[in-house]
Order: sequence, then C-alpha cells, then structure tokens
Amino acid sequence: MSGADRAADRLYALAERAPRVHCITNSVAEAYSANLLLAVGAQPAMSRDPKELPQFLSGAASLLVNIGTLDEARRHAVEVAIGAATEYGIPWVLDPVMAERSEERQAYAARLLQRRPAVVRGNAAEIDALAPPGEGDAAQRLALAAGTVVAESGARDLLTDGRSRLTIGNGHPMMARVTAMGCAASALVAAFLAVENDPLEAAAAALLTLGVAGEIAGETASGPGSFAAGILDAVYRLERSDLVSRGDIA
Amino acid sequence: MSGADRAADRLYALAERAPRVHCITNSVAEAYSANLLLAVGAQPAMSRDPKELPQFLSGAASLLVNIGTLDEARRHAVEVAIGAATEYGIPWVLDPVMAERSEERQAYAARLLQRRPAVVRGNAAEIDALAPPGEGDAAQRLALAAGTVVAESGARDLLTDGRSRLTIGNGHPMMARVTAMGCAASALVAAFLAVENDPLEAAAAALLTLGVAGEIAGETASGPGSFAAGILDAVYRLERSDLVSRGDIA
Amino acid sequence: MSGADRAADRLYALAERAPRVHCITNSVAEAYSANLLLAVGAQPAMSRDPKELPQFLSGAASLLVNIGTLDEARRHAVEVAIGAATEYGIPWVLDPVMAERSEERQAYAARLLQRRPAVVRGNAAEIDALAPPGEGDAAQRLALAAGTVVAESGARDLLTDGRSRLTIGNGHPMMARVTAMGCAASALVAAFLAVENDPLEAAAAALLTLGVAGEIAGETASGPGSFAAGILDAVYRLERSDLVSRGDIA
Repeated sequence: MSGADRAADRLYALAERAPRVHCITNSVAEAYSANLLLAVGAQPAMSRDPKELPQFLSGAASLLVNIGTLDEARRHAVEVAIGAATEYGIPWVLDPVMAERSEERQAYAARLLQRRPAVVRGNAAEIDALAPPGEGDAAQRLALAAGTVVAESGARDLLTDGRSRLTIGNGHPMMARVTAMGCAASALVAAFLAVENDPLEAAAAALLTLGVAGEIAGETASGPGSFAAGILDAVYRLERSDLVSRGDIA
Repeated sequence: MSGADRAADRLYALAERAPRVHCITNSVAEAYSANLLLAVGAQPAMSRDPKELPQFLSGAASLLVNIGTLDEARRHAVEVAIGAATEYGIPWVLDPVMAERSEERQAYAARLLQRRPAVVRGNAAEIDALAPPGEGDAAQRLALAAGTVVAESGARDLLTDGRSRLTIGNGHPMMARVTAMGCAASALVAAFLAVENDPLEAAAAALLTLGVAGEIAGETASGPGSFAAGILDAVYRLERSDLVSRGDIA
Repeated sequence: MSGADRAADRLYALAERAPRVHCITNSVAEAYSANLLLAVGAQPAMSRDPKELPQFLSGAASLLVNIGTLDEARRHAVEVAIGAATEYGIPWVLDPVMAERSEERQAYAARLLQRRPAVVRGNAAEIDALAPPGEGDAAQRLALAAGTVVAESGARDLLTDGRSRLTIGNGHPMMARVTAMGCAASALVAAFLAVENDPLEAAAAALLTLGVAGEIAGETASGPGSFAAGILDAVYRLERSDLVSRGDIA
C-alpha cells in the first residue's frame, strides 16, 4: 500500500470519526485553522481558559500548541493544556512559530520540547533554531535530540523521526502568501494524530493532504484570496484518487 | 402578512437604519461575525475595554454576548457590557457556546441567564445543558425558566418564548463546516433586535435570513471556503422575493 | 513621473525587498491585514509579547499601531513597540480606530500622537476627533499640530503633511462592507513606509494601490464575501499599467 493510499485511509477515517482537536494557537491563525479542521471533518475547540482546559482535553483526541502571539494568559493555557494532554495520554503537536526571531521565543520553544510533543512542525528557520549543533540535517538532529517526529515544511517537505525519512513534493508557492498556512498545517497534523498512532505517518498524511489541496487550489485561484478559500474547498472534496494520482511522497 | 414578508421588512429596516451592534464574542468568530453584520448593513463594534464599554453601549442598539474563548479579561468585559445594556435598556443575545463541554462554562452560562437576555441562541446540546429537567422539549423549558426567547439551531431551527413556537427549515449542511457560523447567527439575531422589539420575531427573521442565504450559497459553492464567502454575498444581495419564495417558516 | 508611476515603483520594491512589517492591531483585523501584507510581498509579524517586542522590532522595517479592541496587555505592547521603534528609527503608523466613540479612546490616541507617528490613517470622524479646533480642514490641522502626515480615507481620500496635499479618488463602496478594511489600509501604509522615506508618498502609494485593487475587485464581486478575497487577488496581481490607467490621484 502506497503512502498516498495510507493517507487517503486516514483522511476517510477523519471524516468518519470526527475527532475533537483542541488548539491553543495564535490569534491570527485561529479562524483559518478551525476552518481547515472542519473541512476534513474534525471538530476544533479553541478554549484557552485554564479552568476548563482539563475538561476540554479529557474529550479531545489530540492537541495543537502554537506559540505565535503569546502572552502570559496563553502561556498559562499552554502549560495547563500540555499537562492535561500528558495525563490523558493525548498526543500533541508543537508549532514553534518564528522561534528564530527572538531569544525569548527560542528558549520557550526549547522548554516545550522537553514536554515530549509527538510532532514538531515548522519551517527550516524554526527547525534550525531548535536543533542542537552536529552532523546531518537539522530535522534529524532535532528529532533525535528531542525524541520526536520533525515535519519541516518547505518546497519539499522533510519528515523524520531521526531514523526513517520521508519527503513530500506537493504544494504551491502561493501557500506562502496566505497567513497562518503553516499554523493550519500544524493543526491538520494534530487532526491526523487523532486517527493514526504513528506520528510520522500522521504528519505525512496531513502534509500530503494539504500539499495536494494546494496544488488543486492553485490551478484555479486568481490570487491568494481565492486560493485561501480554494484550499478549504479542495480539502473538503479531496478523494483517494487525487492523493494517489498527485501524491509526490518518497 | 407572512413570516417571510415580515422578515423582509426587518432586513430592509436594517439596511436603512444601520444600527450599531456591540459584540463581545470569541476570537475565532470576530471577523466573520463583523462581516455578516456589515453585509446586512449593521455597524459592528467589538471593544472589550471595560473603561470604554459603557460609552460604546450608550450608542449601541443591541448587544451580543458569546462565551467562547473566555478568559478573565473577557469575563470582566461581559460583566460591564451587560450592566451597561441593562441600564440603557438595550436588548442582548446570549450565545452559550459549548456550554455542555465543561461544568465551568455551564455554570457561567447559567449565571448569565439570570441577567435576562432577550434571546438565547444555541444548538441542541447547548440548550439541553442549560434547560431545567421536566416535560416538553428543552427549548421550551429553558424559555419558561429563564423568561427568554430560545432559538435552537438545527436541521430545523426551533424558536420559542415558551408559549408561541416557530420552526424554520432553511439552511444547508455545509453551514456546520464553517467555523463560527452559529456565533455569527447569534450576532445576526442581535442585529435584528435593533429593528424589532419582539424578540421571537427578531430571532426568526435572523435565522430565516441566514438559512435562505445558506441555501443560495450552497447552490454554487465548491466547498466550505467558497461557501463562507458565498453566504456573505447572498445575505448582501437578499431580496424580499428570495425570502418569500424560499422561506420555510411555520 | 506621475504619482501612479511612483506608486508602481514602490509596489515593485515591496515585492523585491519583502520587508518585515510589525503590526499591533486589533483582533478583528489581524488575519485580513496579514493577508493584505503578504499579497504585496511584505512579511507581517504580530507578536504582542513585551518581552520579545524589542527583538522583533530590531528586525522590522516599519510598525503599525492600531487601537481597536485594546486591553491592558495590548496597551503595554503598544508602549514597548513604540519605544523600540523610536530607538531604532523605524517609522510607524497610527490608526486611531473609533477615536470619536469614547473619551477614553480619544485621549489615548491623543497621547500616542505625541510619540510622533510618521502617518496617521483614519476616516473623517476619527481625524475630526483628534484635530485641534481652527481654520482649514481637520486633516490639515491635525497634520500641522502633530507634525505628521494625515491620510484620511473617504469617497475621495485626502492626504497632507499640512502643506502639500494629495487626493485619491479610487476605491469602491463595498470596501465599507468588509470589516477591518481601514485597518488593513493602515497596515499597507506601514508596508510602503518600509520602501519609501517620504511618508506622504508612502501613504499615497498605499491608498492608491488599495483603491485601484478595490475597483478591480468590485467589477467581478457578487458581494462583500467574494469582494474581500477579490481585493487580495487584485493586489497580488496589480501591475504598473493598472495603477497608471486607473489611478485617480491629484
């Protein structure tokens, strides 16, 4: 069974099981991330109230923690949410947004890495900022050091648990022209973790889904406005045949 | 005069009077709710600063209180906003988002109910979580217990003040695939309260408007991305003849 | 060289240099503003964490301060951000959203004016609320009193540094039906300040770009939903010939 076929199985599982995915994400990304989750059939929740987070997490299948636009209140929410996820055995995704831009942010992301996310999804600059120095590429070093799967988005996505390695060539240049597209990708990784125990497989299915949807949307979009809506449309309509015929996963 | 005709009268009144509608709503819903209000001709404002809320409320025609993504700052803003609305005699709508998901949230929504919202709009799970036990459906029980109009969204919307009862069959399944659609519906109820004193009639006009717009948008949408934009387009272009010919209100 | 030609030069410079534009803006406007900045090729950042703002600002080419949906945390972020911008010599734009609606807000905007923004962009009511009494129009009075460029949006935009004066007639009525369009215009002014030292020229290029894009989007939009996406598409595709043939700048 090919990687694209396995991704299709998980996409259909998402639509069937409609898992709850809890997101502590930045304010810019909330609406688009929620819409992407709804488009694949997942049920997003975004509460940041520490008082109710444990109860929300108890009913969630996975968690996203995104460190964009952090403030004290969101940091506290992150702490409580990760604590609850750990207690309940719920896998979580770390999106270390702009970790390379400030020492404060880099140090915070490094502390969160010690809490054992199932997957870290970021771009090359973010992964570089968190990986320890050494041989090999940054994604591999970070995966081995943190004991996690690293999903590095780029012209060709690179996914690794430090030993196995996958790359995905799908996507569209206009994805860089829509705000929070990376954040939404991380939310989608969290959704696939709800229906797939292997975090490398879950991350690959998510990035393949989004990359193929991006290619489809790019064929008819007039610019980034229609493209952003077009990705939601394409994800919603995505069929196994799209993933199999277009999927560039190796 | 039919219910659809009365709804059309209010829709035209909204466009003519351009009332200010103040919204304390969750961060995921703010932009789409504001855009829906602008599409019908209302003027949204979203300040949450307790220092200026009384002055904002003094110029507002109605208020929405939505309890999604609450934190201490928003709770305080809600308190001040409801206080000002009560003092100025401004009707307000309560949207008890996900009241069934945490005891904290359920208790908070129950406390807000005692402050006498004109309308409570929610889905079946939310209304069930707030209604006292007893005979009859949850919407009726809640309406009678809280002395309010309950507008319960669903495949067929149910609206009641505990005695009179209306149902609306318009809408589209894709409405469940766009984040904050319910929150935006509540904002629209607040807008119609600005031009109609009877809260049952105002809520019916709002849900009929949104349901018919959803049907129209669903006819051309390729998925939830184009559908979300299409609802704004359809609401903006809605004519009396659309409401009369498509309106399924009983 | 005409004003439209100069605006086109700056638009191409933006795409080439991809400057970082830091935005402290209201929660309703964040996503659309970020998408507008990305559409012209700028790189938005939205952190509000006082701990990391100085480091973010040290890498930014310009700053937007928008006072919608303020709370204590955002006020503190504004303070730190303006302090850092001043220290690093980074030009900043003030958007005094709804300054006419509360005394609190008006007084706060007036205090920020003393910190010397390069440009103040607002609508007529906002500019009127901030201008000192006297002869001439409010934009001119405010520009002279605050030593800033004032860009007043309207059916015909008016831009002045108190001595020189430009007006722009482009735009579309549906721009008033999309939330945060004015806020996004202010973000665009900040972007053009990153590639043009003269604030009057930068503001004119930004408002001309947005106005012409609005006209183009208005030709095919079915309503405010497709119009909002259409503006992003049009800005992304805008060519010198569009600005020159359509630009109504005098």
